[in-house]
Amino acid sequence: MSCWVDVPAGSDFPIQNLPYGVISTADAPSVRRIAVAIGAHALDLAATAHLFTDAAVQAAFAQPTLNQFMSLGRAAWSSARAEITAWLTSTASALHSDAALRARALIPLAHVTMHMPAQIGDYTDFYSSIDHATNVGIMFRGRENALMPNWKHLPVGYHGRASSIVVSGTPLRRPCGQTKADDEKAVPVYEPSKTLDFELEMAFFVGAGNKLGEPIPATRAHEHIFGMVLMNDWSARDIQKWEYVPLGPFLGKNFGTTISPWVVTMDALAPFAVPNAVQDPQPLPYLRHDDAYTFDIKLEVAIKGENMAAPGVVTRSNFRHMYWTMKQQLAHHSVNGCNMQPGDLLASGTISGPEESSFGSMLELSWKGTRTIDLGGGEVRKFIKDNDEVIIRGHCEANGVRIGFGEASGKILPATPMQF
Amino acid sequence: MSCWVDVPAGSDFPIQNLPYGVISTADAPSVRRIAVAIGAHALDLAATAHLFTDAAVQAAFAQPTLNQFMSLGRAAWSSARAEITAWLTSTASALHSDAALRARALIPLAHVTMHMPAQIGDYTDFYSSIDHATNVGIMFRGRENALMPNWKHLPVGYHGRASSIVVSGTPLRRPCGQTKADDEKAVPVYEPSKTLDFELEMAFFVGAGNKLGEPIPATRAHEHIFGMVLMNDWSARDIQKWEYVPLGPFLGKNFGTTISPWVVTMDALAPFAVPNAVQDPQPLPYLRHDDAYTFDIKLEVAIKGENMAAPGVVTRSNFRHMYWTMKQQLAHHSVNGCNMQPGDLLASGTISGPEESSFGSMLELSWKGTRTIDLGGGEVRKFIKDNDEVIIRGHCEANGVRIGFGEASGKILPATPMQF
Ligand SMILES: [Ca+2]
Ligand SMILES: [Ca+2]
Ligand SMILES: [Mg+2]
Ligand SMILES: [Mg+2]
Ligand code: NI
Repeated sequence: MSCWVDVPAGSDFPIQNLPYGVISTADAPSVRRIAVAIGAHALDLAATAHLFTDAAVQAAFAQPTLNQFMSLGRAAWSSARAEITAWLTSTASALHSDAALRARALIPLAHVTMHMPAQIGDYTDFYSSIDHATNVGIMFRGRENALMPNWKHLPVGYHGRASSIVVSGTPLRRPCGQTKADDEKAVPVYEPSKTLDFELEMAFFVGAGNKLGEPIPATRAHEHIFGMVLMNDWSARDIQKWEYVPLGPFLGKNFGTTISPWVVTMDALAPFAVPNAVQDPQPLPYLRHDDAYTFDIKLEVAIKGENMAAPGVVTRSNFRHMYWTMKQQLAHHSVNGCNMQPGDLLASGTISGPEESSFGSMLELSWKGTRTIDLGGGEVRKFIKDNDEVIIRGHCEANGVRIGFGEASGKILPATPMQF
Repeated sequence: MSCWVDVPAGSDFPIQNLPYGVISTADAPSVRRIAVAIGAHALDLAATAHLFTDAAVQAAFAQPTLNQFMSLGRAAWSSARAEITAWLTSTASALHSDAALRARALIPLAHVTMHMPAQIGDYTDFYSSIDHATNVGIMFRGRENALMPNWKHLPVGYHGRASSIVVSGTPLRRPCGQTKADDEKAVPVYEPSKTLDFELEMAFFVGAGNKLGEPIPATRAHEHIFGMVLMNDWSARDIQKWEYVPLGPFLGKNFGTTISPWVVTMDALAPFAVPNAVQDPQPLPYLRHDDAYTFDIKLEVAIKGENMAAPGVVTRSNFRHMYWTMKQQLAHHSVNGCNMQPGDLLASGTISGPEESSFGSMLELSWKGTRTIDLGGGEVRKFIKDNDEVIIRGHCEANGVRIGFGEASGKILPATPMQF
């Protein structure tokens, strides 16, 4: 498919991708508009909204977030995608024919500021990588009891904090909080986290929701999944460890969660579907679906310390390592009638692969801080240092087509403890 | 203080209360307006917004939720309260003098439909009643290890689901989900919950928020607390028990949470403050504050089965039993920089008192289903039956003044399991 907008070699955003995001520009910093990325440009869909044939789509692209577009459902998503594709591939299109519109609507990515793609009502984090769950289980409970008894029967998950989800590039402050040394006689202290970690994750946005009391069946769950982003579920291991019994992670996680700004649609990812994990025992019928809904998405995490010239890659993983599919996660989440809303974010959990070089957190890479992680150039880490920037990247590639996610990056600023 | 609107004897809503809610009326069912309750009436503040002196308050009361008013902070809340009090106590007020406005703005409560008072961005549930935590601990871990080691050092809490919080009167469907019998050889099954429970809770709405990375100190936390409601944190014990390890409660809780519609302000509750619980060990400095911020709020739960003429009271508790204060909860929640937003809801956790007759859940009242709970008239329960209505009420009373919360009620409809 050829596109009249120049797409640089190796770009994450060829015509086959067309991910959605929310932008602003320096001339109107408070005016947020929906855009698609194409090559090194953002196509401002607020400027071209009138070109869509569907009035509901036109109205949705006049919004400052993607929530309304997400709510329209799969048919509207596919038709909008087809129309944008047609504009960008035909030099006879209304967009290409109108030089003034083209100049206004196609904005170099270097000139846009990215914002949160949606207002996230609720955010849920799953725990669906068997390698990650096994690693953490071995560390804290030993190899015999690594996986909890429920793990292979249902996609374990918990509610996270929506307010502190930020878009890539937003610096975060090292959290302070309550920690306690393992020593039985140790007393709790208030201090900056000493074991700050990343978690390599991906997350999907819910499109059309369901009414309270009306579950989404697994077999139709894909109709409710809009698209995916990269995610860093920053984690303060020392805070988490002391607080999490018996009700789960809380302040160890909710000081910040970083997502990539461009939402890659499931239509763009469809060619990269691979067979689902073999599940033994077979899960209950409400969790079964036949279609392949696991995706071959190459993932990597790099860290750039403040004295490093370039980031050093610390792990390479793949979304295909997931044990539970996103369809199973969504079916499980709503099986009790819990209502999903457009813009809800459901995350994978840390995505570790089977090899050490594919572990998705520093907790695993440094095996609880018992060994160092090499960043290159003589820099090593066990956990994140102040002013480290953590950069997650991801892309699919096959037959010369690259569907990229851009990046989810964030720098950790030094803590600012309160004085008493 | 005398008020020219008639306040029936025993009303929850005398002039000293003035709780805020969101109403609609049959003539315009989709137009939601902010109101205060006074006696048996709602005073429509959208109709009287022009009477406020502060332009920001005027604008806030033109909104369909309380979020904007909540965001204005304590000075605006107090001035609005003083103005409303003046209108309703002086027959020379602009409101009393304008018969047409009075007729339009004062609507019998019997003629209004109540809605969610705020759009809740994030909802957190704490676990701050020592009697409840001890009871549950004894049941599941034995008396020696009843309280987890962290419990007296920090207010344990977890994130809940915001989307499924509903206003009093909304029926909820009995959830289906995955459960597993205790027997080691039992396999998980999909079924309607057999051990559906209520949790007697209260919750507070956050007013002005804090920026990400900037904690709210305990000593100033009251400036961020807008007001309180009653809450029923419905819980499916069988679903919860199987799913909750290691990441906490999820589908056992998120099928629905009921709150009372009228938000009672902290100004109205101030006269009912009582000394805080004695905390031993003394918590870390970031959790300390000197002012009394525990409140004498009498609470009761009644259940009305479908064949019962009247509800039967099953427990009487009191908010004064809380170990951790709301100021401590808010300071802890933000100590890591987590950002609070206007309209966020933070709940107490189940409020049990020391006596059996004051336990805040059927799990405790029936001691894990080992004994029956008497509803009167020959009706007994261990857990909730289909078509049971659970009604939570609460009020403060002293010196002839009653500050009431109305009720948080909800009926459980039969499950509708999916067929496979
Ligand atoms: Ca995670
Ligand atoms: Ca609860
Ligand atoms: Mg996080
Ligand atoms: Mg609940
Ligand atoms: Ni051209």
